[in-house]
Amino acid sequence: MKLALLGCGTVGSEVVRQLHDQSRELAARVGERIELAGVAVRRLDRDRGDLPVDPGLFTTNAHELVTRDDIDIVVEVVGGTDPAREWILAALRAGKSVVTANKVLMATDGAALHRAATRNGAQLYYEAAVAGAIPLLRPLRESLHGDVITSVMGIVNGTTNYVLSRMTETGAGFAEALAEAGELGYAEADPTADIEGFDAASKAAILASLAFHTQVSVDDVYREGITDVTAGDVASAAEIGCVVKPLCIATRDGDKVSARVHAAMIPKSHPLAGVNGAYNAVFVEAQLAGRLMFYGAGAGGAPTASAILGDLVTVARMRRTGRDGGNESGSGPAEVLPMGETQTRYHLSLDVTDEPGVLAQVATVFARNDVSMRTVRQSGRGNEAILVAVTHIARDAQLARTVRELEDLPSVRRVDSVMRVEGES
Amino acid sequence: MKLALLGCGTVGSEVVRQLHDQSRELAARVGERIELAGVAVRRLDRDRGDLPVDPGLFTTNAHELVTRDDIDIVVEVVGGTDPAREWILAALRAGKSVVTANKVLMATDGAALHRAATRNGAQLYYEAAVAGAIPLLRPLRESLHGDVITSVMGIVNGTTNYVLSRMTETGAGFAEALAEAGELGYAEADPTADIEGFDAASKAAILASLAFHTQVSVDDVYREGITDVTAGDVASAAEIGCVVKPLCIATRDGDKVSARVHAAMIPKSHPLAGVNGAYNAVFVEAQLAGRLMFYGAGAGGAPTASAILGDLVTVARMRRTGRDGGNESGSGPAEVLPMGETQTRYHLSLDVTDEPGVLAQVATVFARNDVSMRTVRQSGRGNEAILVAVTHIARDAQLARTVRELEDLPSVRRVDSVMRVEGES
Repeated sequence: MKLALLGCGTVGSEVVRQLHDQSRELAARVGERIELAGVAVRRLDRDRGDLPVDPGLFTTNAHELVTRDDIDIVVEVVGGTDPAREWILAALRAGKSVVTANKVLMATDGAALHRAATRNGAQLYYEAAVAGAIPLLRPLRESLHGDVITSVMGIVNGTTNYVLSRMTETGAGFAEALAEAGELGYAEADPTADIEGFDAASKAAILASLAFHTQVSVDDVYREGITDVTAGDVASAAEIGCVVKPLCIATRDGDKVSARVHAAMIPKSHPLAGVNGAYNAVFVEAQLAGRLMFYGAGAGGAPTASAILGDLVTVARMRRTGRDGGNESGSGPAEVLPMGETQTRYHLSLDVTDEPGVLAQVATVFARNDVSMRTVRQSGRGNEAILVAVTHIARDAQLARTVRELEDLPSVRRVDSVMRVEGES
Repeated sequence: MKLALLGCGTVGSEVVRQLHDQSRELAARVGERIELAGVAVRRLDRDRGDLPVDPGLFTTNAHELVTRDDIDIVVEVVGGTDPAREWILAALRAGKSVVTANKVLMATDGAALHRAATRNGAQLYYEAAVAGAIPLLRPLRESLHGDVITSVMGIVNGTTNYVLSRMTETGAGFAEALAEAGELGYAEADPTADIEGFDAASKAAILASLAFHTQVSVDDVYREGITDVTAGDVASAAEIGCVVKPLCIATRDGDKVSARVHAAMIPKSHPLAGVNGAYNAVFVEAQLAGRLMFYGAGAGGAPTASAILGDLVTVARMRRTGRDGGNESGSGPAEVLPMGETQTRYHLSLDVTDEPGVLAQVATVFARNDVSMRTVRQSGRGNEAILVAVTHIARDAQLARTVRELEDLPSVRRVDSVMRVEGES
């Protein structure tokens, strides 16, 4: 299975690296090895560090690469409408399947590209175009297609979400928060596409098209930037129990659809209200499913590469077997660890006698079992005391043995409670 | 495309209803009509109210139905291992594709069923088996397959989440909270499968198998119920900034995997901490994608039917076209509403002169434009005042016109802020 890559920036480099490092796993998923057969770049002489790729694969002639007979799949991460459109159309017309992260192109020319794919028996996938790593487009397109989606409301632009989150947290004005975002790398040198809502408008067009099984172009999307949002707006929102969020909203009412991008107040209790910083989330309402939310990293090289590689495995499997998914592939046996070998933390509450030396005895039991205590707190209650301990990570068997030995200590009257602690990083 | 339905309880009836009500939409997605050709039930004489189905389609002979020549697809919503296993195997061996919601069967015999499907060129889908309406299994199986999932942590049982949520909210003990769950319909008459973790263990086995591309059986899953969780545990959790949640956890470390079900403390800041009541959510960590979360309704007739119908459209399309998804199908034109026609709410902050009659003038402008005010609040500041209004839902054009007319009022010195309010129900 031969792959042509168009573009080798942050995302493209990550794709190259993963094709190399995960070569065996990807081959297990697809059923054969995916071979990088060419990389189109603007400049051949750029230093690409230790990127694991044969320098002979680089070319500046993208058109020739995508139409080469041996190429099966084209991954496009150049972005923008031109010349990406021409390359993708050339690839599709030559029967190659295409995976792209190009939201602008999909939002303006999605219909024409889909037609070209269908006519030539090729596949066109673009999960990475909206909300980075979050599996969102395929669930809309292939999981919820038996339901009727009535609305999609999302935070799909990290820059504006970061700026408005900071305005909410610090009371800063727009300009100050944007400057901070720029310093920290959350905003581009020219942030126009983000803060004026162009980026989110492309994504709104794609989401509305998929959710409502129609064609909504970026020109159909109403768009307001966040540049006029003031510290006063943020304060007003707080007064009515809301926060200001940069939203893209697509709704359907019968055969009428609408798509828009603007900042809005949403109640603090809404699941999107807690989505801060560079995270993305999309809230979907459907007639049968009710309310759903998808949450995750919206941008960045690795998350975007995750979405691209997922699509790549899909189209590669389709080319190989004529179908996607279906039954499990590349399922291998794995060793299932017994619970005793599992790593976890414990919270323990002990009813102990209130006398000197109890903590030393308890600590000795922990140490003997090689379990490290993260916090310990003892509070007296007359002639007895409660000792609460939270451990660091250890094997479950060590923790269980520690509990048994604590129960045997004369100074421990009772182990009141033992519970695992999860979800801490 | 002919469908056999096994089981006609809450979920089965909802599937029947949707096949009838959504017949046109489903045909547009698949490319042909899906016809309900038989329904296997235990008793023919049960009153099924106004269910839109020809009574002649009911049969008590499920085996005969699933092997009938004209049947293309079998939907199984009977549940349990026997006799569902025999029926599904018979259907797959006869080359029929199968959609099932049967978590117990998939967790015990998933490997054998997948083999039968593959051998006979049939498809086997079971999105409804875990986390109801949430598109979760297909994203794991078909979106994240280019990434390496390292852990899956989920709240996948509504009963135990309801019970622990109530214990957290009210300080009640386990027995009291369970009794309340029973009264409100959140717990079965015999709640053993839920509170002892059997239900979650089946789901953990399915999630671990899909996430790690291996076969984890329910017997491999470590399981603890929530019956021993006390009000004291819940209080202890709060003291360290945590809440107690019923978790299913599957982790992978190289070729070693583990799967377990138990209550645990998680930090209040963790995305799963806010998932309350009957909602489900699954938190996934992957090497490239980072942290992802999927959230939605975990049970109920309509949400489960959403997942089943999604799978049904998928297998029907596969039977028809030889492939799923790929390019858009059944895309129809829709009317895109201009922003002025969009329904929304406004939050307005006006700088007004502090004199009698201002509110009446402002209210008159709203009324003239047929915009209803939900709240209005005026606060004096010397000889001026701030008037804050939040409207009910109206068309954006009405709201915009209202703002323009307010700006022209002599008593309005300035419109300080206008912002839409979204996400309220």
